[in-house]
Amino acid sequence: MTIGDRPLPFDEFVEALRQEGARRYHHLHPFHQLMHEGKLTPGQLRAWVVQRFYYQSVLPLKDAAILANCPVREVRRTWVRRILNHDGLADRPGGLDAWLKLGEAVGLTPVQVQNAEILPGVRMACDAYVAFCKTHGWLEGVAASLTTLLAPDLHQTRLTALRYHYPWIQPEGLAYFEWRLQAGRQDAEEALDILRRYCVTADDQRRCLNAFIFKTDLLWALLDAVYLEYVVRGDGCTPYDDVTARMA
Amino acid sequence: MTIGDRPLPFDEFVEALRQEGARRYHHLHPFHQLMHEGKLTPGQLRAWVVQRFYYQSVLPLKDAAILANCPVREVRRTWVRRILNHDGLADRPGGLDAWLKLGEAVGLTPVQVQNAEILPGVRMACDAYVAFCKTHGWLEGVAASLTTLLAPDLHQTRLTALRYHYPWIQPEGLAYFEWRLQAGRQDAEEALDILRRYCVTADDQRRCLNAFIFKTDLLWALLDAVYLEYVVRGDGCTPYDDVTARMA
Repeated sequence: MTIGDRPLPFDEFVEALRQEGARRYHHLHPFHQLMHEGKLTPGQLRAWVVQRFYYQSVLPLKDAAILANCPVREVRRTWVRRILNHDGLADRPGGLDAWLKLGEAVGLTPVQVQNAEILPGVRMACDAYVAFCKTHGWLEGVAASLTTLLAPDLHQTRLTALRYHYPWIQPEGLAYFEWRLQAGRQDAEEALDILRRYCVTADDQRRCLNAFIFKTDLLWALLDAVYLEYVVRGDGCTPYDDVTARMA
Repeated sequence: MTIGDRPLPFDEFVEALRQEGARRYHHLHPFHQLMHEGKLTPGQLRAWVVQRFYYQSVLPLKDAAILANCPVREVRRTWVRRILNHDGLADRPGGLDAWLKLGEAVGLTPVQVQNAEILPGVRMACDAYVAFCKTHGWLEGVAASLTTLLAPDLHQTRLTALRYHYPWIQPEGLAYFEWRLQAGRQDAEEALDILRRYCVTADDQRRCLNAFIFKTDLLWALLDAVYLEYVVRGDGCTPYDDVTARMA
């Protein structure tokens, strides 16, 4: 859907985001399809947990970059919660800790996850997200977050698949995805409320739609790097295969 | 004090910051001297409250910029508290609200304070602080915050002077400064702890000392603009003189 000289009615604008998401979001990526069909080896699944942790770890940076560009205090008072949710506070664990628990549930120590070598394509995609939020308007950063419109469905599919196809994963490690099922919906509602108020011109809408597409691209590029390294290239062996023996 | 090829012992480095602060911090500025001697008119004091609000309002932005550049999660989990302290959360007022109460205590409505025309020199100084934190390393942003080493003494002098010389200010409006007396000390300790761990090379120390000096410069420049407009220029009349009549 293209946006002309006049802004779309808000509902149509959200529908445009959903349509772009439906064909661009990484639920369609071959790596996720393998995951959902139960076709990843334990080493490949672990490799994804490790590489995706780098994405998780930049989320507070991109949210802080959005804050740093946002002169609207009411928006900041809402948005800062995302930083707290992922980083936690001195006395409160955050989403990053939940992801490290996922790592443990698949047989990786927190040190292994935190100190892993990150693939160049993964690093590039994640760092590009932070750079985007630093160098674009805060409203575009908010729009980029709106892949949360599609995330809960993906998380539900993923949870079901992980429980069914990968029974060797300790179930308590899946708490991150259970959290995101609910939190993702709340985050999406909150971001939509902000766009409803501040994304009002056709130009705003165009820039926000582009930001959303950029975000789907970077998620896709991240998985491309993982897929190429751990599925396509070589014989499917990963640096994380031998952990299997320790878990069995 | 200059920093040579080798880093100073940490205590000497902090002493170097204090020495630069002792001769550069805005407690020496003629505008603050007038304030502390009880020589500001109500209109001049109100003008300062209004212009300084712009500084207050950019603090969450510069702290978010520091966060956005900081890959050290433990530092972020500490530093994010500063954003919460000034912005507050959905259900919690922050330092910005306390400053608006100060405005009310001197006879200004929150709308008057929030929508006031900001002097170019004030805007430039405050915006430069945000830009500095965006474009420099997070450690330099932390160092720039360390005017909190000198702030509690200034706040004590200011509190005493405001209570003694300006009895027309409603005392409950001074809560912001009472808060900062304590919070400033905590903030300074916290920032020093971070520098102790991460500001370790001579080059780190030089960059941090320069950041600290930059910060004293911007605070000074802010007051220069206020002093020139409301004290030096013209007859000492300000746009806020007529509020007096309403308060009396």
